[in-house]
Order: sequence, then C-alpha cells, then structure tokens
Amino acid sequence: MSLEAPWTRDELLSRLRDVGASRYHDKHPFHLRMHEGKLSKRQVQGWVLNRYYYQTRIPIKDAVILSKSEDSAFRRAWIKRIHDHDGTPGGDGLEPRAQEGGLVQWLRLADGVGLSRDEVLNLSRVEAGTRFACDAYVSFVRERPLLEAVASSMTELFAPEIMADRIAAWETHYTWIDPAILDYFRARPPRARRDSTEALDFVTTHATTRAAQELCVAALVTKCQILWSLLDAVALAYPDEPSLAEPSRDGPSLREPAT
Amino acid sequence: MSLEAPWTRDELLSRLRDVGASRYHDKHPFHLRMHEGKLSKRQVQGWVLNRYYYQTRIPIKDAVILSKSEDSAFRRAWIKRIHDHDGTPGGDGLEPRAQEGGLVQWLRLADGVGLSRDEVLNLSRVEAGTRFACDAYVSFVRERPLLEAVASSMTELFAPEIMADRIAAWETHYTWIDPAILDYFRARPPRARRDSTEALDFVTTHATTRAAQELCVAALVTKCQILWSLLDAVALAYPDEPSLAEPSRDGPSLREPAT
Repeated sequence: MSLEAPWTRDELLSRLRDVGASRYHDKHPFHLRMHEGKLSKRQVQGWVLNRYYYQTRIPIKDAVILSKSEDSAFRRAWIKRIHDHDGTPGGDGLEPRAQEGGLVQWLRLADGVGLSRDEVLNLSRVEAGTRFACDAYVSFVRERPLLEAVASSMTELFAPEIMADRIAAWETHYTWIDPAILDYFRARPPRARRDSTEALDFVTTHATTRAAQELCVAALVTKCQILWSLLDAVALAYPDEPSLAEPSRDGPSLREPAT
Repeated sequence: MSLEAPWTRDELLSRLRDVGASRYHDKHPFHLRMHEGKLSKRQVQGWVLNRYYYQTRIPIKDAVILSKSEDSAFRRAWIKRIHDHDGTPGGDGLEPRAQEGGLVQWLRLADGVGLSRDEVLNLSRVEAGTRFACDAYVSFVRERPLLEAVASSMTELFAPEIMADRIAAWETHYTWIDPAILDYFRARPPRARRDSTEALDFVTTHATTRAAQELCVAALVTKCQILWSLLDAVALAYPDEPSLAEPSRDGPSLREPAT
C-alpha cells in the first residue's frame, strides 16, 4: 500500500486509460481477427454464444453492486444498468414505459448469426473457461468493497470506440450478417459514456487515498483479465480453419483431418 | 423434511395466512397500542425512527434477490420493488419518468412526527435490537436460495389491511400529525397486493415438493419474527409513560423518578 499523495482525477483517469491501452480485450488476437474480418462464421457464432454468458452475468453483478450501496441516490442511478440489460415491462400504471433490454438484442444478434435460440438460452455450449472468467467477475463484485466493484466496471471507458469499430468491421467484412441485428452495439456507446462517467465520478470521490486509488486500478486490471480470458476460451475452442470461401495460402492439404 | 404430497396453491396460501394470523406484527402489544391511539408522541417518533432502518434495508434485500435470479423476466418484475423504495430519476431520455420513492415518503413522515431529518438519516438513534432484526432479514435473503428469499417477502399478503387500519387509526387518534404526510401508507396497498400476488405465484410455481413448501412457510415465520423483534426493540426503548396531556389514572406520584 502506498502512502503517497492521492492522484488528481486526471492522473487517476490517465492510469485507468493506461490499463485499457495495454490490457483491454480489443488487443486480443481473436478480437483483432474479428475486426479484420478474418473469423469464420463458426468462430463468429462461437464468440456470440460465449459472450452471451457474459451478458447474462451483467445484470446479476449490477444487482450485487446495488445491494452493496447504502445510498438511495447511488442505487437510483446504478439501477439503469439493470434495465439496460433486462429491459423494462410497462403498462400497469405503476411502471415506467416499456424498453427493450440488451439481452433481447443480443439474442437477436445470435439469431442473426445463425445460432439456435434454444442452445444460446440454455448455455449448454458455453465453454468452461468462459464460465470461470464471467463467474469470477460476479465473485469479485460480491467479495470486494463497493468502491472496487464500481471501479471494475470502468472498462466502459473503452467501450464506445470498440463498438463503433465493430459495427464498421462487421458491416464491411461479415456481409452475411444483416446489419439490422447490430442494435446491441449501436445502443451501447451513449450508455457506456454515461455509465463510465458516473463510475469515474464515484471512484474519484470515494478513492481519497493513493492506496484506495491503486485498488481501483487493480480492479480494472482484473476486469480486463476477465474479458481477455473469455476470448482465450473462445479462441481455443474455435481455432482458425480454412474458410470454405477463402482457402488459406497453405491450402487445405497441410491441415490435419478433423478427428 | 416431509415426503407427503405437495399442498395445492390454496392449501399453501392457507398455511401462509395461518402464519400471518398468529405471528404478523399487527398482533404485537406495541402495535396494538399504536392503532388504539395509546402511544405518546415520543413512542410514535421512536417507532418511525426505528422503522426507517427497516425501510432502508428493503431495497438492499430486493437487490440481493435480483442478484440471485438467472431469469431476466423475474428480475424485470422484481426490480419495481427497488424503484418503489428508491424512486426513479427521470429526464435524460434513457430513463423512465421520475417517481418518488418510499424512502423519501418515510422521511416526510419522520419530519411530520417532529423528528430531526439528520438524526433519522444518520441512523444514530436506531436501537441495536432493530439493527440485528433488520440485518437478519438481509442475511437471510443473502444466504438462502431464491425461493425462500422470495417467500420471506410474503408478509406483503397481510400489509394492505394493516395500512388501511393505520391510516384510519392515525387520523383518528394522532390529530397532531398532518394527514398529508401519510403518503407512504396510502401508496403501499396496491403495491403490496401486486407484489404479494407475484411472490405467491413464484412460490406456487417453484415450490413443487411439500419439503420446499414447508421451507417457504418457515421463511415467512422467520420474516414475521424479524418484524416482531423490531417492535420488541422499540417497545423496550420507548416504554409507556404518563402522557403530558392525559395523566394516567394512578397519577404521576406513583412513578419512579427518571434516572
């Protein structure tokens, strides 16, 4: 633990951005290949399928964060994240207006890349490594103080850019995917900006010592490791293969037969 | 654990109502005296102050319940309870309309019975027994399976009647209280009916064995004990005293001097 003076908000933000620059999952080889248009349909499906498990953990970890706060105003702001994923019903007069959630949008994405809705929903094809990484996120948030739990959400700082790149890359390279199903990616940037600003405000206000700030940076490192590990699991389960449309330069003859 | 056939929905509801009939806190001597108009202003204040701590635990335990569910539709329904207590902000276009929460209404009630807002908010005058009982509720919900956590909420089955009685009793007996501040009690009955029906539906659907049903009944007993224990703590801390306005028949001379 450091006894040095706390960083200013800008210094803290700079440290957090350094974490993103070196560790955010946009640098993962599988992710680079996704945005370069080099994934097969099967690999895209594998990513969508496994990433759905991550999506299902988000409202759960956000509910854990809600349950850790003693502050009604904090909860009133944070609860929007749960609605963003679960959606809101509407219509009985006591409730806000209906709003579609990110989970439903993700399921439409899964339909659109050719996955069976049932096998996405029942999570039976999710890799063990994906489960361990995503469950580790929920456990981290459950076991750590509210401050570190909030800090771990700040990968949202880096999300708007990756979403814009993804939409462009998918529209360019994966022309077999209907662009209409990319709603999830389109909806994220404004929410990610709002959410990451809120989280940064909270962390800046509540991490008043250098030691606390360092724990927040460490929380963001852990979160980046979680996202990275998910892609490791997907990359291992869905290795590169010669595409039917574009055989690799080495040609199919050098590959082992499927076993 | 019982190996007998599961109860029907009506039989289960009848068991739950039996728990309410014998154990719900409307039978507690302090509560009976409240509705008979026999509490002093100081006792009413003591109840409002201590019960505020219970109110603050509700959105926390509901967030714990949210975090225990894997079902987006369940969470989408249950999350309303958190809004009911915390309220919703509104206005940025991504959010539902603003709605006042029960915690704010309770604070207005506290103002109206003459408590200092600060000493209500900082919880410094909450009795230890109140904290232990309310914290036990959050712990129960955290430690038990979702089914029992939901079952423990079903004191809402008995709430609409007690609220109607309370408004009538307070308006009749505590004429020093402005009836305009009883909004919290007025807002509860429709929500309690909606919430208890939802919880009963969930319990009926998911408690498919007699053993599971018995655990649900036991959860409701525990919850009734929690509400009862809160009133024990308040009654011990705020014993009856000759009112300044209405001296007791024995007269003040028989009382011990204050120590």
